[in-house]
Amino acid sequence: MEKKEDGLHLFPELFLTGYPLKDLCFQKPFITSYLTLLAKIGQISSKMKKREDECYLLGGLHYTFSKEEGSHPFQIQNVIFQLIPGEELTVIYSKTVLPNYDIFDEKKYFTPGDSPKIIGFAGHHIGLTICEDIWPHSSHHYRPDCELKKLMDSSGIKLDLVINLSASPFTLNKHLMRTERVEQLSLYLKAPVAYVNRVGGEDEILFDGHSFVYNGKEITHQLALFQPDTCTFELAAIKSEFSKKDAPMPAIEDEVDLSQTLSVLNSSAPTLKELSERNCHDITLALTFALREYADKCGFKSFLVALSGGLDSALVLTIAKMALRPGEHLEAIFMPGVYSSGLSSDLSEELCTNLSIPLTRLPIKFLHSVTRNVMKECYSEELVGIADENVQSRLRSMLLYTRSNTSNAMVINTSNKSELAVGYSTQYGDSVGALSLLGDLYKSEIFDLSRYINQKYQNIIPPAIIERPPTAELRDGQQDDHSLLPYPKLDAILEGILSDHLDLNNFDKFGFNHDEVEMVLKLFKRSEYKRFQFCPIVKLKSKSFGFGHRVPITSF
Amino acid sequence: MEKKEDGLHLFPELFLTGYPLKDLCFQKPFITSYLTLLAKIGQISSKMKKREDECYLLGGLHYTFSKEEGSHPFQIQNVIFQLIPGEELTVIYSKTVLPNYDIFDEKKYFTPGDSPKIIGFAGHHIGLTICEDIWPHSSHHYRPDCELKKLMDSSGIKLDLVINLSASPFTLNKHLMRTERVEQLSLYLKAPVAYVNRVGGEDEILFDGHSFVYNGKEITHQLALFQPDTCTFELAAIKSEFSKKDAPMPAIEDEVDLSQTLSVLNSSAPTLKELSERNCHDITLALTFALREYADKCGFKSFLVALSGGLDSALVLTIAKMALRPGEHLEAIFMPGVYSSGLSSDLSEELCTNLSIPLTRLPIKFLHSVTRNVMKECYSEELVGIADENVQSRLRSMLLYTRSNTSNAMVINTSNKSELAVGYSTQYGDSVGALSLLGDLYKSEIFDLSRYINQKYQNIIPPAIIERPPTAELRDGQQDDHSLLPYPKLDAILEGILSDHLDLNNFDKFGFNHDEVEMVLKLFKRSEYKRFQFCPIVKLKSKSFGFGHRVPITSF
Repeated sequence: MEKKEDGLHLFPELFLTGYPLKDLCFQKPFITSYLTLLAKIGQISSKMKKREDECYLLGGLHYTFSKEEGSHPFQIQNVIFQLIPGEELTVIYSKTVLPNYDIFDEKKYFTPGDSPKIIGFAGHHIGLTICEDIWPHSSHHYRPDCELKKLMDSSGIKLDLVINLSASPFTLNKHLMRTERVEQLSLYLKAPVAYVNRVGGEDEILFDGHSFVYNGKEITHQLALFQPDTCTFELAAIKSEFSKKDAPMPAIEDEVDLSQTLSVLNSSAPTLKELSERNCHDITLALTFALREYADKCGFKSFLVALSGGLDSALVLTIAKMALRPGEHLEAIFMPGVYSSGLSSDLSEELCTNLSIPLTRLPIKFLHSVTRNVMKECYSEELVGIADENVQSRLRSMLLYTRSNTSNAMVINTSNKSELAVGYSTQYGDSVGALSLLGDLYKSEIFDLSRYINQKYQNIIPPAIIERPPTAELRDGQQDDHSLLPYPKLDAILEGILSDHLDLNNFDKFGFNHDEVEMVLKLFKRSEYKRFQFCPIVKLKSKSFGFGHRVPITSF
Repeated sequence: MEKKEDGLHLFPELFLTGYPLKDLCFQKPFITSYLTLLAKIGQISSKMKKREDECYLLGGLHYTFSKEEGSHPFQIQNVIFQLIPGEELTVIYSKTVLPNYDIFDEKKYFTPGDSPKIIGFAGHHIGLTICEDIWPHSSHHYRPDCELKKLMDSSGIKLDLVINLSASPFTLNKHLMRTERVEQLSLYLKAPVAYVNRVGGEDEILFDGHSFVYNGKEITHQLALFQPDTCTFELAAIKSEFSKKDAPMPAIEDEVDLSQTLSVLNSSAPTLKELSERNCHDITLALTFALREYADKCGFKSFLVALSGGLDSALVLTIAKMALRPGEHLEAIFMPGVYSSGLSSDLSEELCTNLSIPLTRLPIKFLHSVTRNVMKECYSEELVGIADENVQSRLRSMLLYTRSNTSNAMVINTSNKSELAVGYSTQYGDSVGALSLLGDLYKSEIFDLSRYINQKYQNIIPPAIIERPPTAELRDGQQDDHSLLPYPKLDAILEGILSDHLDLNNFDKFGFNHDEVEMVLKLFKRSEYKRFQFCPIVKLKSKSFGFGHRVPITSF
């Protein structure tokens, strides 16, 4: 057992506090309990037998108080604590580059450090970095990688290892970006790199873990995606020969949002790439993980999905089933209205049979006709058009939440990114829910993901659900592509608007239909008020709706 | 006419772009149209007859591009443009202190300037500042006021005027803070100060204008609150004698959120102050202004309020009526259920008669009983308790939005801050609406404001509405203070939590009932998910729910 405790133990960025904390880090109840925790850890450590071959590096917050501890914090830093048995907990490094783009607001809360750090352990020299430190921006004048290099050069120290403690949010294909960056860093500093990433889900943000050790040539240790995991490695065993030639400094990252503006002007027309099998695999893991994390942290053991007979709700139910653990309960509700087809009913039933999930039918027909009568009596007008369509959607959300109230079940939202982008949903109707699983996937991607799941799980989603034309069934003969554009076209335009920041002129140049793009741009702008009141959306892409999408409602 | 154009014309911070823009300032459509506007202004100016006795100072954004104009912006600065007829538009000053607390995210978008600026005009020396420049923070090492002073000292220049172009959000009593600050600055720099503030409303944020000129002794010119206004002054006429003695440097502001943490520990128990007559006057102006701005910018000419017979909805309807302009339409809906009292119906009618507003009754009784039947048939259980209460609230929101759809009317939310803080509302039920007018006022303050309005407008709100015990009427004999605490007690606790960041221990020390505070703290934390999906709340206080309140749902 003694052997196991030897060595350097690495824990991710803000391991001691959680991340992101947002305003919590300013709040007294949080500060008090965090300081108590730190004091306890320090006491335990102080009382341990002194030993120098064991050390723990843990990410945490360092509060500095202007007067006594407990008065208001003068500054908060995102730091690495060093714990050596027999000694007190000490702060040894402070993050120097604070991300402040998209979902990140670290400059709002933290004060950056201003110097690199090399520590010694068991005869080794180890360079320390925290997350964004290895992704410096053009807007930030401090370059932690170069400063570390300068320190090495001036002191004549050669590094045996570089550590990066991260709380790096998951987005599709990010692992590739991380390994490429770590490779550059490793060659530049001529040392292996241990990349230690947080695992967890907080509202919309997922931390995927997926930590790894890179030896300058390859990944020697790869930890699990979306689950806590550990590995042990010997520095001697992973160390490879580094070239004597100087490797180039890793390229500066442009501040993310700025760089994305207009970046596509000289490139090809916007398209939405099909999700690869690997993407679908990662997304499935991400969504099941997100649902479990949210449910655990909010205390839900029971889940509820409203089925329409269409694909979005079928996919949500399927993913919820995948996420389900022993002792948890999942149920589906189908709420037929006057325009619901027999096919929708049959397919919902078939899906629930395939998944072994109880299905309840709550008819809205009578409620709908009573509502029509109430409105007609009071306003002497027949209820028609959008108003009549929305009634059905809102009656369904009312029944859905009534069931949620009686069974204490979490309602999982079933909207997709295409709908969200153009406002093709009823506010307080089909847009309700505690958490959106599919809100960062375009409808085209919903198809990709569903086909992937069906291939892997023997057509568990009835193929007819995938093949039928999408419809809200709120009036006779309604089909999504009659109100909007066919989804492949719509999604390409949306991706051009969202990720490439294109305007109408750009689309014109790429040969898109002017009127169609104009309509989509108008719908996109007009529906900001609906997104404003939407639930958290599990973030899968670098540009998603949610906390990183900040646009005023009244700006146009 | 010639006379009128002479002189220096001052326009507020970001006059040319609007504020806050959030992500818009990164987006190509915005950048393109803004650069086109700047070019047009420049052209018009260039073609004008050259004259040196006329100058315009306008707040705007300055984009710097790394490659050609139209490529991605390398940096964005919040600047003052100078326009002299016959010359090109030039950037003459860049804001040096970027607010980044609460609702402000300027460090996310803008790059700060790093030097003070004194310009000459018609033989006068004029110091330039933008908004936060005169409110430096402890977290910021640059002090624009001191730098300006240093520049004066080193160059031997005496200032004839200091200008502050602001986009300063309204909060209660802020005018007093501004005049105090401006007085300090004026004495320190020994010059009169022109404080020029933006007028407008963007989502939750109001800019109240209320610009003024201070001559070192008093305000010589005071512009209107919440409406566009102008004034003309002669420097010679406002200039007063400044003491030869050096006045102290204005105190550093702590970064707002940091300073509020724990600041109350040594002071007295938290209480909620009664709103003064002046407060009530300002709030009434603010709320009517907010509603008009939101409606204008979103294109609404028609408004809808659901009346319950209680005070919140009565006050909202009254304020909406005050905001109403010719050609606009306001209507009320009363939706009696099985637990609605005759009193609620009578009082709603009386209110609408007083206000001359059409009232429609949309009964929910039958819909409610049909819903009970649907649920009972499907789940073989009587609908009772919270689930049955929420049904009524959600049926009402369904009918309300159905009417909104048929009349294209904007639904005004009727929630108050006390309810929002403890989650005492039905999600997708009584919490719906496009804009919340009262969401930054505690229930106790709703009473203050209603009494003020009744005093001013001959009891336009039936006094019985103010005097009856608050109730949601969702079950027999329900009263708010049976479920919660009496509002004066609840609101004092909430103010302690929100504004003073107190924890349970602090409340204990102040002699509050431990169990009561614990319950409120629990309800406050638990209801974050409801606030997450809430509409924009007109901001009246320095600490309000909305964009400046950022707390994860899953953090506990």
